[in-house]
Amino acid sequence: MTSLPADMTAVAIGAPGGPEMLQSVTRPVPQPGAEEVLIRVAAAGVNRPDVLQRMGLYPPPPGASDLPGLEVAGTVVAVGPGGDPEMLGQEVCALVAGGGYAEYCTAPVGSCLPVPKGFSMAEAAALPETVFTVWHNLFERGYVQEGETVLVHGGTSGIGTTAIGLCKLFGIRVIVTCGSADKCDAARALGADLAVDYSNEDYVAAVKDFTGGAGVHVVLDMVGGDYVPRNLDCLADDGRHVSIAFQRGAKVEIDVSQVMRRRLTLTGSTLRARSAAFKALLADEIHRTLWPRLAEGAWKPAMDQAFALTDAAAAHARMQAGAHVGKIVLTV
Amino acid sequence: MTSLPADMTAVAIGAPGGPEMLQSVTRPVPQPGAEEVLIRVAAAGVNRPDVLQRMGLYPPPPGASDLPGLEVAGTVVAVGPGGDPEMLGQEVCALVAGGGYAEYCTAPVGSCLPVPKGFSMAEAAALPETVFTVWHNLFERGYVQEGETVLVHGGTSGIGTTAIGLCKLFGIRVIVTCGSADKCDAARALGADLAVDYSNEDYVAAVKDFTGGAGVHVVLDMVGGDYVPRNLDCLADDGRHVSIAFQRGAKVEIDVSQVMRRRLTLTGSTLRARSAAFKALLADEIHRTLWPRLAEGAWKPAMDQAFALTDAAAAHARMQAGAHVGKIVLTV
Repeated sequence: MTSLPADMTAVAIGAPGGPEMLQSVTRPVPQPGAEEVLIRVAAAGVNRPDVLQRMGLYPPPPGASDLPGLEVAGTVVAVGPGGDPEMLGQEVCALVAGGGYAEYCTAPVGSCLPVPKGFSMAEAAALPETVFTVWHNLFERGYVQEGETVLVHGGTSGIGTTAIGLCKLFGIRVIVTCGSADKCDAARALGADLAVDYSNEDYVAAVKDFTGGAGVHVVLDMVGGDYVPRNLDCLADDGRHVSIAFQRGAKVEIDVSQVMRRRLTLTGSTLRARSAAFKALLADEIHRTLWPRLAEGAWKPAMDQAFALTDAAAAHARMQAGAHVGKIVLTV
Repeated sequence: MTSLPADMTAVAIGAPGGPEMLQSVTRPVPQPGAEEVLIRVAAAGVNRPDVLQRMGLYPPPPGASDLPGLEVAGTVVAVGPGGDPEMLGQEVCALVAGGGYAEYCTAPVGSCLPVPKGFSMAEAAALPETVFTVWHNLFERGYVQEGETVLVHGGTSGIGTTAIGLCKLFGIRVIVTCGSADKCDAARALGADLAVDYSNEDYVAAVKDFTGGAGVHVVLDMVGGDYVPRNLDCLADDGRHVSIAFQRGAKVEIDVSQVMRRRLTLTGSTLRARSAAFKALLADEIHRTLWPRLAEGAWKPAMDQAFALTDAAAAHARMQAGAHVGKIVLTV
């Protein structure tokens, strides 16, 4: 086993507030528990929930690190008690419940996937959070199938760009909304079948028009609020609405008569608080079905910009400015 | 083939209004089309949607009879063009999209089921609407399984009593709400595991208490309005909420963060407007799984009161008064 330092550099949230609250700190290198590994982090993904956590709006679940960071890529440098020493030295990316903004991070063995062939560490770090989220919510909760059409808001976000990529890999038509003509161009370049600039077009009318009046089979929504009734208007009969965030508010008014008459389904989920067992099952399914396609070069995540770990504040400022296209990552 | 009269007595809706708007009329005996049979009606079930239709709030779907009545039992006296003459003389009960309040009624072949062994025509006429509705919504849309617990409002209504019966047949715990202590007693006598008198007890607290804080797996809701958020509070994690009516209003406010955090699902359906093909599939499933149990005497619908067809107004008045327990039927 490689000799490990006692301490590491990490980025912590000093107090709830702006990006400047992200501060470099020295912390003990964490110890992997049973069914865990320790990863020497090469890159960590930045996600919207990290911003909410920094603002004090999304506390870490019980037992999770207080450090932000939900996904990492790097090298396994230690295994927990009873762990498989064969994992030492493996290059992996992993979904973690926190602690990714650090030189070292523990991860459940079941949440680790190999770095796909041909992927940089930064690209691998950009996979877990959005791939797991889109996979579970679009395919498992939304039951989207080949030949169907989905609507995803925020077409140039990490979730949006990943949804475009996965839909195109599996024969699904994808409509996205974006906040500017430039972002619509970027979304189309990534494969969106239709990109609607919500700043000057009614997306409900655009969806109806594009689908010949039929509507979409699934909406993947992170907007909430007044978008939800409009999303339901976009759904075809028997359509599914899956919520993964609520940027415009959690209180939503729906019309039950529409739900009944058109047999709509509304559901949603959060990934972070799920059990290690659930995440392991999901990781295994993704490993079997998606990873072979990644090794063929069929898709890579859209990469916006990489920042040094100690420049995490700048990475958050970029995410909040909203001009990014694709994933923002931190590199160590 | 039996010689059929040209005309029949039926009950029509003179104009939207009270029970007195139900008027005996003479109408031509309808002709069965392809894939239809003509039934000489012995009994017809009375359902809440008939009351709404009479009030002008629930128009018949395109192509359906303007006469009320969604379920009948009787004898097949004619088959449509190309139909199977073996059906002539068979005693059947049938789900129909309208026209049940009459001496003769056409029904799609696929919506007919044999009168179960040991059932009177009145009992058979009390089956289709609530059995099909409860079956599809509780078992198919709500995925309720043996060992799970459901909450159903209106425990002494046709839907409520049928839900109690089907749940008990298939090993499902059932909690109902009712509007009085007497109705709670009646629901318990029919097999409800818990009956909550909503007029003097908070059903959310009662459900939590009865389930040891865990909540129920499925809510079958016909109340809507402010009940829906309270129903969601009753659900266990991963619980399903299925809407089949909205007596307190279709506008409903839900908390998307709760839906996500606890992975709830909301859906619903209406039966009447579904295709003949769908109803035939549903009838076939019910025939294979439920009918053998009925022939064994495992369950009969709770029968409230029978009225003569020409006393349909009195039957509606009784339903609206709300003192009934179980099914109200009309007999010819």
